[in-house]
Amino acid sequence: MFKERLFTPGPTQLLPGVQTAMAQPIVHHRTEEFRSIFREVLDGLRYMYNTENDVLCFTASGSGAMEGAVVNLLSPGDKALVVSAGKFGERWTGLCKAFGANTNVLSIPYGQAANPRDVAAELDKHPDTRAVFVQYSESSTGARHDVKALGEIVHRRPKTALVVDAITGLGVMEMPVDEWHLDVVVAGSQKALMLPPGLAFASVSQKAWELIETTRSSKFYFDYRKERKSNAKGESSYTPAITLIVAAREAIRHIRSLGRDQLIANAGLLAEATRGAAKALGLRLFAESSPSDALTAICAPSGVDSGTIVKAFKKEFGATVANGQGEMKGQLFRIAHLGYYDFTDTVALIALLEIILKRLNIPVELGAGVTAAQKVYLARSS
Amino acid sequence: MFKERLFTPGPTQLLPGVQTAMAQPIVHHRTEEFRSIFREVLDGLRYMYNTENDVLCFTASGSGAMEGAVVNLLSPGDKALVVSAGKFGERWTGLCKAFGANTNVLSIPYGQAANPRDVAAELDKHPDTRAVFVQYSESSTGARHDVKALGEIVHRRPKTALVVDAITGLGVMEMPVDEWHLDVVVAGSQKALMLPPGLAFASVSQKAWELIETTRSSKFYFDYRKERKSNAKGESSYTPAITLIVAAREAIRHIRSLGRDQLIANAGLLAEATRGAAKALGLRLFAESSPSDALTAICAPSGVDSGTIVKAFKKEFGATVANGQGEMKGQLFRIAHLGYYDFTDTVALIALLEIILKRLNIPVELGAGVTAAQKVYLARSS
Repeated sequence: MFKERLFTPGPTQLLPGVQTAMAQPIVHHRTEEFRSIFREVLDGLRYMYNTENDVLCFTASGSGAMEGAVVNLLSPGDKALVVSAGKFGERWTGLCKAFGANTNVLSIPYGQAANPRDVAAELDKHPDTRAVFVQYSESSTGARHDVKALGEIVHRRPKTALVVDAITGLGVMEMPVDEWHLDVVVAGSQKALMLPPGLAFASVSQKAWELIETTRSSKFYFDYRKERKSNAKGESSYTPAITLIVAAREAIRHIRSLGRDQLIANAGLLAEATRGAAKALGLRLFAESSPSDALTAICAPSGVDSGTIVKAFKKEFGATVANGQGEMKGQLFRIAHLGYYDFTDTVALIALLEIILKRLNIPVELGAGVTAAQKVYLARSS
Repeated sequence: MFKERLFTPGPTQLLPGVQTAMAQPIVHHRTEEFRSIFREVLDGLRYMYNTENDVLCFTASGSGAMEGAVVNLLSPGDKALVVSAGKFGERWTGLCKAFGANTNVLSIPYGQAANPRDVAAELDKHPDTRAVFVQYSESSTGARHDVKALGEIVHRRPKTALVVDAITGLGVMEMPVDEWHLDVVVAGSQKALMLPPGLAFASVSQKAWELIETTRSSKFYFDYRKERKSNAKGESSYTPAITLIVAAREAIRHIRSLGRDQLIANAGLLAEATRGAAKALGLRLFAESSPSDALTAICAPSGVDSGTIVKAFKKEFGATVANGQGEMKGQLFRIAHLGYYDFTDTVALIALLEIILKRLNIPVELGAGVTAAQKVYLARSS
């Protein structure tokens, strides 16, 4: 007998207050009641984002808001620079190409993060680049790009915007959007916000708005300018996912009461504990040098397909962890820390991992990973 | 940041299917729709109880069904034998005295179980004893009485009934009611059934019904004969806790799909893992010789008030464990295994306990309890 538990980097576990909010009768979206809720959500998103910029809200998955960033910033033929180090970097490339951008890709090996100097060099080579696209946290590898340094580099170029996919970065790692000069920052509901998928967000800086004004591309649903006008009236341009917005109000109230920094510190604790445990168990981290706190990608021991570990978690304990994606499938498994996970969840998962490795005859010392995690906890909370 | 989690021996955690069932619109209780639900629940209770006897369902806490057993079996002045080894044994004594029974108490030190020979000796001394009252699992101490042996002893006496409080025993430890000759077995919803409190149950053997026929006591709400007639029609005599009965159907369907024996094996695993962990951490079990699998009562280390440990669990990790009751308060803390807990829950709680003990400067080896629990898991599931 076991309980089903998600440990995936999206969807993440739901806040209980979110579940009960979604069980309430629905309200109509063209009413003052809804506008008041939606305004509270938009204001809360600015708090989450730590920004004075507009934050737009779309009924879409995160990829919808990514598409929005491309179609609002780039006209066909415009030069784009994609910093790509995993499946989500590749999604930026796919989007830029689909909309006819002249796409320059800075490819970084999976598991590594971009060297900001390489990005600067590309921009020096292509000074007419209109937008740089990057992930804060590359969920497929568990690596973290230094978007603060990229912000400094792009900020010096008035005709170039920095677009950050922070879908698994928002509410997970420190990200002062304005101070770091992040022009468009995309996020989604099913991550640190502890909501189901279905809402996507984009913050837009003044510099980005100025570029958007001059973009000539075909767009309708993800038209940022239209959405800004609707949002200013407390509405969305098209029928929103009302239930998710009502739920988002609960999540945001919870995060405000907890404090944005506490949410971030929690993910940091769980990530550090998991990395410590993996090392204590002799496992290699896939993104060793610049790990994200959103998730930890752990390499399967030599000779073991990571799918075996993923299946054992599910079959034996009801715990869902993520396999590698694409070419990384079979090589690594990914454990989430972002959103509604606590130390109790994480230390338990480590204990289960030890049992699974033992069963696979991997030479691990039972309890060693747990002890490493406990030491991280004690060091952080003493 | 942490999640609130109950680890108390009642209420226990709710099955998610129970939560969603309770969120449904209410049905009326004098309808065929409800009668069909109620019959399924009564039938499911017989499955849970592993009995062909009637199982009655009351809207009451477990103590209500305990009172029912007393008032249906004993007339004022009748002789009763109470086997008492904790706060719930004392509740039998309080009930018997409140209803004017001539109450003989076999007192056993807290933490210990009754020696069946002592019970036989009392019955030899008082052959006119009309009912013996005992707990299967004494939740205040974590001890288990050998109700199988008591069943054999009482079975040989046609004018004496054995009444078992199995509130924390049903669905936790093996209990073939008919084979063991348990005449009245009382249980409650907020335990292994994974429901909120509010429903109480009593199985009644043919022998018990014959004794009940001749009881002359004042009773109304807990009148077993009246309830049997109502239950036979798929109804309860008085307005039932409809929502809880609808929820009970979900819980029983879940238990049937899992299998009663699996539910019991799960509690056994968690109990053995917890006992192993406590020993590995140098902690003493309060009920060493005959432990119940419903919960484990662990003695606080010398010089530490168990309330300190209980408070640390709650304050630091959001985990609610139970302190000792009455005179045992401050001496021990109690961790539940019955119902909707799994190994993941339990191994996490042990890891948290290690951190708490470390903080209190108790000389424990981090990870030692977890490792002992992991070894129990591996031994049981290999």
